[in-house]
Amino acid sequence: MTAYRELMEFERTTCALAQVAGRLGWDQETVMPRAAAPQRAEEAEAMEQVLHARRTDPRIGAWLSRIDEGALDAVGRANLRHIRRRYERATRVPARLAGEIARVTSEAQVLWAEARAGDDFAAFAPVLARIVELKREEAAALCAGGAFGGDPYDALLDDYEPGATGAGLAEMFASLRPRLVALRDRVLGAAHQPAPLTGRFDEAAQLALTARLAERFGYDLAHGRIDRAVHPFSSGSGLDVRITTRTDPDDPFGAVYSTIHETGHAVYEQKIDRAFLLTPLGQGVSMGVHESQSRIFENQLARSRPFTGWLMGEMARAFGPLSTGEDAEAFFGAVNRVYPGFIRTEADEVQYNLHVLMRFDLEREMIAGTLAAKDLEEAWNARFEADFGVRVDRASNGCLQDVHWSVGLFGYFPTYTLGNVYAGCLYRAMRDDLPELDAALAAGDTAPALGWLAERVQRHGGLYEPAVLIERATGAAPGVGPLLDYLEEKFARIYRL
Amino acid sequence: MTAYRELMEFERTTCALAQVAGRLGWDQETVMPRAAAPQRAEEAEAMEQVLHARRTDPRIGAWLSRIDEGALDAVGRANLRHIRRRYERATRVPARLAGEIARVTSEAQVLWAEARAGDDFAAFAPVLARIVELKREEAAALCAGGAFGGDPYDALLDDYEPGATGAGLAEMFASLRPRLVALRDRVLGAAHQPAPLTGRFDEAAQLALTARLAERFGYDLAHGRIDRAVHPFSSGSGLDVRITTRTDPDDPFGAVYSTIHETGHAVYEQKIDRAFLLTPLGQGVSMGVHESQSRIFENQLARSRPFTGWLMGEMARAFGPLSTGEDAEAFFGAVNRVYPGFIRTEADEVQYNLHVLMRFDLEREMIAGTLAAKDLEEAWNARFEADFGVRVDRASNGCLQDVHWSVGLFGYFPTYTLGNVYAGCLYRAMRDDLPELDAALAAGDTAPALGWLAERVQRHGGLYEPAVLIERATGAAPGVGPLLDYLEEKFARIYRL
Repeated sequence: MTAYRELMEFERTTCALAQVAGRLGWDQETVMPRAAAPQRAEEAEAMEQVLHARRTDPRIGAWLSRIDEGALDAVGRANLRHIRRRYERATRVPARLAGEIARVTSEAQVLWAEARAGDDFAAFAPVLARIVELKREEAAALCAGGAFGGDPYDALLDDYEPGATGAGLAEMFASLRPRLVALRDRVLGAAHQPAPLTGRFDEAAQLALTARLAERFGYDLAHGRIDRAVHPFSSGSGLDVRITTRTDPDDPFGAVYSTIHETGHAVYEQKIDRAFLLTPLGQGVSMGVHESQSRIFENQLARSRPFTGWLMGEMARAFGPLSTGEDAEAFFGAVNRVYPGFIRTEADEVQYNLHVLMRFDLEREMIAGTLAAKDLEEAWNARFEADFGVRVDRASNGCLQDVHWSVGLFGYFPTYTLGNVYAGCLYRAMRDDLPELDAALAAGDTAPALGWLAERVQRHGGLYEPAVLIERATGAAPGVGPLLDYLEEKFARIYRL
Repeated sequence: MTAYRELMEFERTTCALAQVAGRLGWDQETVMPRAAAPQRAEEAEAMEQVLHARRTDPRIGAWLSRIDEGALDAVGRANLRHIRRRYERATRVPARLAGEIARVTSEAQVLWAEARAGDDFAAFAPVLARIVELKREEAAALCAGGAFGGDPYDALLDDYEPGATGAGLAEMFASLRPRLVALRDRVLGAAHQPAPLTGRFDEAAQLALTARLAERFGYDLAHGRIDRAVHPFSSGSGLDVRITTRTDPDDPFGAVYSTIHETGHAVYEQKIDRAFLLTPLGQGVSMGVHESQSRIFENQLARSRPFTGWLMGEMARAFGPLSTGEDAEAFFGAVNRVYPGFIRTEADEVQYNLHVLMRFDLEREMIAGTLAAKDLEEAWNARFEADFGVRVDRASNGCLQDVHWSVGLFGYFPTYTLGNVYAGCLYRAMRDDLPELDAALAAGDTAPALGWLAERVQRHGGLYEPAVLIERATGAAPGVGPLLDYLEEKFARIYRL
């Protein structure tokens, strides 16, 4: 087993370096001096160069060929699965192409930001076309030898959600969309519309409250910290997992729910078996499973009727009397209000997945070559009107709203909805297992839910493939039923349907 | 010139990675979650492994042998000087030995901290003996082929102060010590003793004041930031140079002068010619020159009679009426009080170098093999009594007070005093050039002094060897006269000698 030991030692250093690179990103978004960016770009590129050299190091291939996989235990085989997947991905893409993608997407982010600011899709279209061309080239390289059934979209998707396929997701999403559209229409047309929470909310009090909520949701501050950033995110694995938050004096729910969302990501990382530290198993197994943890924290738990009843008291203590009075049902309605809007990241639970589904379809077409980048805006606007019944008024409210495509993220969007689907499955199984769940949440007690998720999902890290992990946790193959049932029941109550 | 270009491109990435490693250290001392240390140790070790591999990369040797040095300009030749020196140092020390030193000193820091806490030199002596043995082995390796005239101490010293020799410093320090001892005796025996500043000083006000002082001393916060840390330090080069500070409610001078000291280090880095960014010339040229900048900021400028006159007003505004009243002469005395003490880092301007000189002599003897590590405490205490007239009461006030030897820093201590000597030379030349200096400082205006230092010293980065740089800046070879004259004149005034 010398080859396996040597390989794992090599991987451990790579994992440690990847953590360093990640922390450099955290630093950039939180504490970096504002004029340090040009030097930071070179530092980040140097780290990428080091990591790429390690991930394509031919010694990995040699070690892999010498290891007797049959002699390994489940952990060893899982490690090899991750290492082999990443090595094959890294070595199949020519260095020239990888460098070109890095260069073009780096430039594209600036162009995208400018185009968005000017609502000028035409200014962004040429570089988007170039990115799509390069990603298609990358996908073709990844499909060499018949991998991914020769499907370029699947080759890209696999980087974020191992084992998932575009066709499989398309089928799943096809059964999701009609019931979501129907629910959205009933909700928006309902006679009873809950009032929003209004007022001014002290930002220092918001920060204090969100820190308490993060701890209540299991975030370990001895192994993490909370800072402010423009966009909330979670960063790092193992013993150093940091989150960020933001505040808005008019909307405390932004801070509360983005913090709980990032806490879900962070707690997943923190609860992974310590034996997996700095190994390929020592981080969340996929973007979809990661999102399932952030979403179940944020939505099924923290936006539930029992928990919001408790939260209402906390918020009244933090901010003084609320515009919803002491009516827990009204507060529950305010938390879960459904409203028309163009922006994915601001969308409610009912409409969020509709935003994702259209991005999935459009990016699949772009990668398949059936939708030209220059025609994206027209296709986007047509689809948006079909799904949401509203015409997009400008590109920044339409196809320029998300950064993803400008940085080359194709195959990433569907993991958001897959995460919601997984969260639906996990929540149903959790409720079946935990009859005391609602009573605990009504007292602000997250321990039963957190314990269940840590045991069933989080501690395993990368040990199981995503779909296997969810099936082991829930006792059933993942499907859209639980999520839809949950949404229909919850919003029927709130909107008195 | 392909070889030179390739070498410089390789170096640029190495410089960028060194900045990343440095920032990881900043993170550890300022914002790292408290329980993240074990993972951080692995991350830092991984970065060291990457940097060591690059610094010993045989391609460097091949490039160096192919470059026609005669075809290079002064900048090119200076780059080669740094690269060659570091490459030779790195390749002469066997990887086994470098790893062993890293391991032993890492363990030794814990043992040192425990021994210091328990005032138990005997508990530290064995690992100190091992460190000395390893450093002697390292020095012997560095002396291979007759380098450093075969002098092991010089081989170690050269890492911190290129071109300096133990014999040269010993001669310099021999002319420093008698006049310092005499001055110290006269000062401590003087009839007039200035009163200390007493009172309680709001810590938030201290932080606000130190930030203003840092900016007044040229610190560019667009390329830096100030955080709190247990030990003040400056970190980073180029576009991202960060400093830390600490506060003590009983002693605002600690925060004020440690901040101005670190500002001196940081401004040196910030003022280096931007053309040298991420090259071997893009950082301070030696520890001695670095210390000269921090010391001239802290002492010759910020502890001067004119500047303290201005500072008194700032402090009264920040904290309310001062115990020294509105008497600028009394405030100047309080800032510059000389008092008996065991601890180097708390020492005043008169006695500081005496602390350094004894460490220099003791570490030279240890490296020469004429003083056994086990006998250090006895030798330390005897020397301390001879120089300071006081018996050391316990090891934490004696030979266990500094971390340096436990981390393997031999040859580092003398650069502190060399920095003071350089600061003395620079200050004399600056005064000769700037007749308006005192009037400006009395108005809190540091611009003439800062401009002079940036032009004569800081902008050059690593272009000139340290002694050459000082000679170019001052018009004379460095010597102890200016520092001694400055100290004798200043303290004669304060103590009415």
